[in-house]
Order: sequence, then C-alpha cells, then structure tokens
Amino acid sequence: MSASLPTLRDSEAKLQYILLHSAQIFAEQGFKGTSIRDISRATGISLSGLYYYFSSKQKLLYLIQINAFTSILERAYLRLANVEEPQARLRVLVQNHVEYFLSHPNEMKVLSHEEDALEGPYRHEILVIKRRYYDLAREIFEAVTAGAALPPGCSARVAVLSLFGMMNWIYKWHRPRVDPNADELAETIVRIFLHGVLGDTSEEKLMSALKASGVRSD
Amino acid sequence: MSASLPTLRDSEAKLQYILLHSAQIFAEQGFKGTSIRDISRATGISLSGLYYYFSSKQKLLYLIQINAFTSILERAYLRLANVEEPQARLRVLVQNHVEYFLSHPNEMKVLSHEEDALEGPYRHEILVIKRRYYDLAREIFEAVTAGAALPPGCSARVAVLSLFGMMNWIYKWHRPRVDPNADELAETIVRIFLHGVLGDTSEEKLMSALKASGVRSD
Repeated sequence: MSASLPTLRDSEAKLQYILLHSAQIFAEQGFKGTSIRDISRATGISLSGLYYYFSSKQKLLYLIQINAFTSILERAYLRLANVEEPQARLRVLVQNHVEYFLSHPNEMKVLSHEEDALEGPYRHEILVIKRRYYDLAREIFEAVTAGAALPPGCSARVAVLSLFGMMNWIYKWHRPRVDPNADELAETIVRIFLHGVLGDTSEEKLMSALKASGVRSD
Repeated sequence: MSASLPTLRDSEAKLQYILLHSAQIFAEQGFKGTSIRDISRATGISLSGLYYYFSSKQKLLYLIQINAFTSILERAYLRLANVEEPQARLRVLVQNHVEYFLSHPNEMKVLSHEEDALEGPYRHEILVIKRRYYDLAREIFEAVTAGAALPPGCSARVAVLSLFGMMNWIYKWHRPRVDPNADELAETIVRIFLHGVLGDTSEEKLMSALKASGVRSD
C-alpha cells in the first residue's frame, strides 16, 4: 500500500475510496478504455488488494452504480419521512437529486454514459433500483397532481421523465462559479415543473410548500 | 467496394452513408472502442476509400457532430423563417429538435457521450456551432418572456438549459411503440415549459400560438 493512502479504518471506508477513484477514472477514460491496472495505479492499491473488493471490472462498475442509487434513495427516504404535503415532497426529491449529482459529477457521468456497459444480473439489478427510484418520483407526482387536470396530452410518465431530464442534464452545463447552487437550482426546477404541470399553482401555495419541505427556512 | 453497398451517385451521398454508419458504431462501441477498420467492415468501404473522406478518427467524429448540428440549425432557420409569434417560434424550435433526435438516436448518443473526445480546433468548432444554437434558443426564449416576470431565481440561462434537459434526455427513455411521437412530445414539453416559466399563459393563447407555428393543423 502506498504511503499517500489515507488511513482506512475498515474495509467499507476503503471500498468507498476505491469506488470514488474508479468513478473518476471511468468518467475520464470511459469504462472500455480503463483497465484494473489503471485503477490500481490511481488508488495505490495492489491488484490483489483490489480483487478482495471486486472480482471483475463489470462488478466494479456495478458497485459504483448500485452505490450511487442506494445513496440517493436512502437519503430521499430519510428526508421524506417527516414531510407529508405533496408539493413539499416533490421539492425534497428534487433537492436531494440535484444536491447528490452536483457533488458527484463523476458518478453522474458514469451512470449516464455506461448504463449499457453492464451485463446480465448486474444490469438487471440496476434496472430494478432505478425503477424503484422512478416509482417513488411517480408516486410523489401523482399526489401532487391528484384531482388536477394535466395539460392535454401530458401523461404522468412523460411529465416525470421530463423532470428527470431537467435534473439529469445539469451535469452537462453546470459551472460551479457561475451557476446557481443545488438549493437554488432545485427551487427553479420545481417552480418551472409545478407551474408547468399544474398551471394554476399560486405563488403563495408554492412558497408555503417550499417552507414545509424544510429545505428553505426563510 | 462490396456488392451490398447502395448505389452512391456522388461523394456527398457516400459521405452521408459513412457518417450514418459510423455514428451507429460509435454509439454501440464508444469512440475509443472503435477502429477505422471497424468502420471499413461496417460500411464495406476500403481503408483507402475511407481516407478520401477523413484523415483521422478525430476528423470522423468531428464530421458526425458538425453534420448533426448543421442539419438541426439549417432546418430550424428554414422552419422559423415565416413564423413571427414568439411562442409559435418556441414550438417550432422544440419540434425541430425533438424530431431530429428521435430519428437520429445514434447521433444523439454520440453528441452526448463523446463531446469530450474531440480535441483542438475540432472541439472549438463544435463549441462555436453549439453556442449558435443555444443563442437562437435563448433569443426565442427572451422574446417569449419579454415583459413577463420570470419565476423568482429563474435566470434565462437556467430556464433555457432546463428546456434542453427535457429534450436531450428523451433518448434515454423513449420507446417508439409505447411513447408519444415527436409531435406530441414537443407539444407536451412546450406546454410544461411555457406554463412553467410564464405561469399565467392561458390555454387559448397557447393554442393559438401552437396553430401559428404551423406544426398543428387542428
């Protein structure tokens, strides 16, 4: 183990360290363009040390992806636990998503660019957790729009996936020094989206929902 | 030249044929994972035949990208030429974009995943044409929102890039047999977006703008 390695108290911390650096290399060189040897060089961990954590490059890519989705979902459930008002729940979901990916741009790039690189059961498991996340968003969306008429031709599926589009494209254009932070971005996206699908949302109702979400104190 | 090649009347048609197949291979295997030899096999054109059209893989990737953006921009200008009402112009822009990428999913994937693969002057030229396209969208957006108050904290930049997010994420989820076609998708996105940023857009005003755009006859 190289001297530059941080002190790693346990194997979970070491795994997180490996996943962090691997996501960075995959983001830079692509999954196909990266060898386990590259990972070994970047982490300062020997090949046999790495094989303790994953048996193949496929498994490593799977671990990066499942780890990202698990983190997002766990944080979302935790933050949503005490929020009941539907618009406030949507605000929490968007905030959680934008916050995670603004602080994990490499993981975002790997999730987006390498989703087809996974094979077999790994691919299936990622599809399952993505579906759980989509279902959560869809459920919140249905609660927000319950009783309201959606714009003509606008299905819940297209609306929810358009929301993901706004959120998931951010990594392509966001420049930390120039552009709004996660909090402001989440608020703008929720406003555009809620006004967009509900049309008649009053500013007062929106503000009270934003306050209820707990992500704004003013 | 293999017998399976279509009759190619001139070199422009042949170039388009090469770009089409190369985009498909790059989309499947990635830019780094593809060799000129792979392109030669897939197109049935000899290596020396290919070198008549491009001198390097970098040049080929550049040609695919510049060709896509040039097509989108030319079609947008043509369609916008006789449309003056701002909301109708936005509808034309979105329709044009969604239509192009639903029918060119490989090009979409290459543009999105390989933008960092281009180097030097090629990279610069693509940035310039992308900027022209963004400026056109921004100009239309400014006309649509002239005099209106944007949602608090919502800059024109974030709004326009959120619109691109909705459009550019479609390739990730669109299933032709299940999901709406380009026409319906464009309409839904414009509705969500216009309601979203203007808030008070009445349905009648929107419908008349959609008719003025010429993309809906009903």
